[in-house]
Amino acid sequence: MNIESSKVRLFCENLFAAYGFSSDESKVISDVLIRADLYGIESHGIHRIGRYHAEITSNQVDVKAKPEIVHETGISACLEANKAMGQLVGVQAMNLAIEKARNNGCGMITVRNSNHYGIASYYTEMASAQDLIGISMTNTEAICVPTFGAQAMTGTNAMALAMPADPYTFSYDASTTVVPRGKLEVFRKNNTSLPDGWALDENGKTCTDAAVVVENIIAKAGGGIAPLGGLGTLNGGHKGYGLGIIVDLFSAVISGGLTSNYVNRKPDHTGICHYFMAIDYGIFGDKAAIKSNMSKFLQELRDSKKAKGQTRIYTHGEKSAETMSQRINGQIPVNEKTLEELNVIAIQLGAKEL
Amino acid sequence: MNIESSKVRLFCENLFAAYGFSSDESKVISDVLIRADLYGIESHGIHRIGRYHAEITSNQVDVKAKPEIVHETGISACLEANKAMGQLVGVQAMNLAIEKARNNGCGMITVRNSNHYGIASYYTEMASAQDLIGISMTNTEAICVPTFGAQAMTGTNAMALAMPADPYTFSYDASTTVVPRGKLEVFRKNNTSLPDGWALDENGKTCTDAAVVVENIIAKAGGGIAPLGGLGTLNGGHKGYGLGIIVDLFSAVISGGLTSNYVNRKPDHTGICHYFMAIDYGIFGDKAAIKSNMSKFLQELRDSKKAKGQTRIYTHGEKSAETMSQRINGQIPVNEKTLEELNVIAIQLGAKEL
Repeated sequence: MNIESSKVRLFCENLFAAYGFSSDESKVISDVLIRADLYGIESHGIHRIGRYHAEITSNQVDVKAKPEIVHETGISACLEANKAMGQLVGVQAMNLAIEKARNNGCGMITVRNSNHYGIASYYTEMASAQDLIGISMTNTEAICVPTFGAQAMTGTNAMALAMPADPYTFSYDASTTVVPRGKLEVFRKNNTSLPDGWALDENGKTCTDAAVVVENIIAKAGGGIAPLGGLGTLNGGHKGYGLGIIVDLFSAVISGGLTSNYVNRKPDHTGICHYFMAIDYGIFGDKAAIKSNMSKFLQELRDSKKAKGQTRIYTHGEKSAETMSQRINGQIPVNEKTLEELNVIAIQLGAKEL
Repeated sequence: MNIESSKVRLFCENLFAAYGFSSDESKVISDVLIRADLYGIESHGIHRIGRYHAEITSNQVDVKAKPEIVHETGISACLEANKAMGQLVGVQAMNLAIEKARNNGCGMITVRNSNHYGIASYYTEMASAQDLIGISMTNTEAICVPTFGAQAMTGTNAMALAMPADPYTFSYDASTTVVPRGKLEVFRKNNTSLPDGWALDENGKTCTDAAVVVENIIAKAGGGIAPLGGLGTLNGGHKGYGLGIIVDLFSAVISGGLTSNYVNRKPDHTGICHYFMAIDYGIFGDKAAIKSNMSKFLQELRDSKKAKGQTRIYTHGEKSAETMSQRINGQIPVNEKTLEELNVIAIQLGAKEL
């Protein structure tokens, strides 16, 4: 069913306030979640509130946490999140990166002991909206199996980058795995076989039974998802595996936080880590010329010859921008099961139902 | 056949001096090429000299070129390479990035109008050898077809990152395509079918005939290689496509140089662009602790459970380091056809034969 986006926003703000977040904090968290729904990325939108509810009520998220800067230079900082809500640390960290980029050309912020922060592109687009390049990465609970391995060691470990361009901001935001976990869950629900090469069983062999893979993941019994490029090295799986390590390097290793293989191993602590960077691309030359170079290149990509049967080549961020323009003053599709779950939570908290 | 690495080095230094490069310049170019052979990456080693010969004698490479800094800040620079040999600009640019990282925490250098620079990891490891994080990217002639496209628009567009660790430096260096062009050429030579999903014909359909794909690439007749993740979006091909765009952003777009789709379109100008970055990771906290975090994480990856039938999980840079330790004071395998070609060039230039 479809619900007015303004109504969903108000519901979320009331709900988060009911956990004890301030009015401003509730607005920030809600804005990150609703942006995902406006972009058509349901997995990271209000659908996720059920999991956040479990994390907040089990003290994996500390509602009263205040992140602290534990190391800082003119172009960098390391933030100890103290188990704060990921969206709140995320916005704080990217704002700090943006301030450093404005003053000193670039800002790089590494964050430890945070929580799930929603869509990475929310943060990178905070930078691109201010005419900067934005970069963000986050580790997650281990779900990706290294090349030649049988045990999940890295997370879906998303990388995101936004660069201003006309008419669409270039906004890349993707996991370094062949697919995210949510996709396996859809196949399991529909009782259909996974495409060969997406996932591995506990012996590190390809497995097309979604139920086996998802249950193994939940039980930490081995196996998981293949890195981008797939199983083995034939199609470059070692590349996706390496990109996942790079995400853990910038988020967890340099912050002194938990690498993916230690994330979410305690009932009251996820330990998720992030990375944020903003670059004033004027440090390389004339900004108007550089932005125009980017717009031209992206247009050439979109205008290039299509494969037989295809009518359109997209650049990254284009689909989300289009979907948002339809939904921003209109309605958001809300899954009936999600709606039911949200209302159970609202009643429990004494907040208004959706 | 195998030849003493010291003998190969001397041959190369003499050869490049015969083109008119200074003794120091010849040593730098030779060192980059021989490093690839020491690492076991034959495609980027002395095998490549045949192509460099064509580029130097056709004035795509200007032997006397002096790269100029056209824009500079304390943490950044834009270099106009003036058609210099890629290895010479590459070393100059990474040295500048390293100097800026030492003085100001990080250095980011974008380079336009350069040429093929060899293995990207040569430059990133210049930084890691000085206890910094090194990053490098380079665009190339267009060979990769965008998702839903039928025409090559981005290059193999390698990304590389090196981070100090014990006992092996983490050194990632990979194209953002499913395979590099050299692999297709091997299949064509052996007259074997390509794995499904590596390449596309001129209609943007999957094509397993290596000869068709390679000939189309040479004739710029359409088609090419799939991005990392393969054709379409099923296995994440749109992710590799986006990573390729990011490489063009940092190398060509911000330098004001040629994006991949314009590279190598003139007989006397390739226009290849690069990006180099060095980060003093001490800007995030205690360097010894951070390096130790990285070493521990990489060891955990190598020690994690192996897939059935596998005995070893590698981390990036480990294989190259092992191969080099066997070859550095010993011999390098040299393909007989390459040897023949090198000696023809040497005779032509009046240099000593190998």
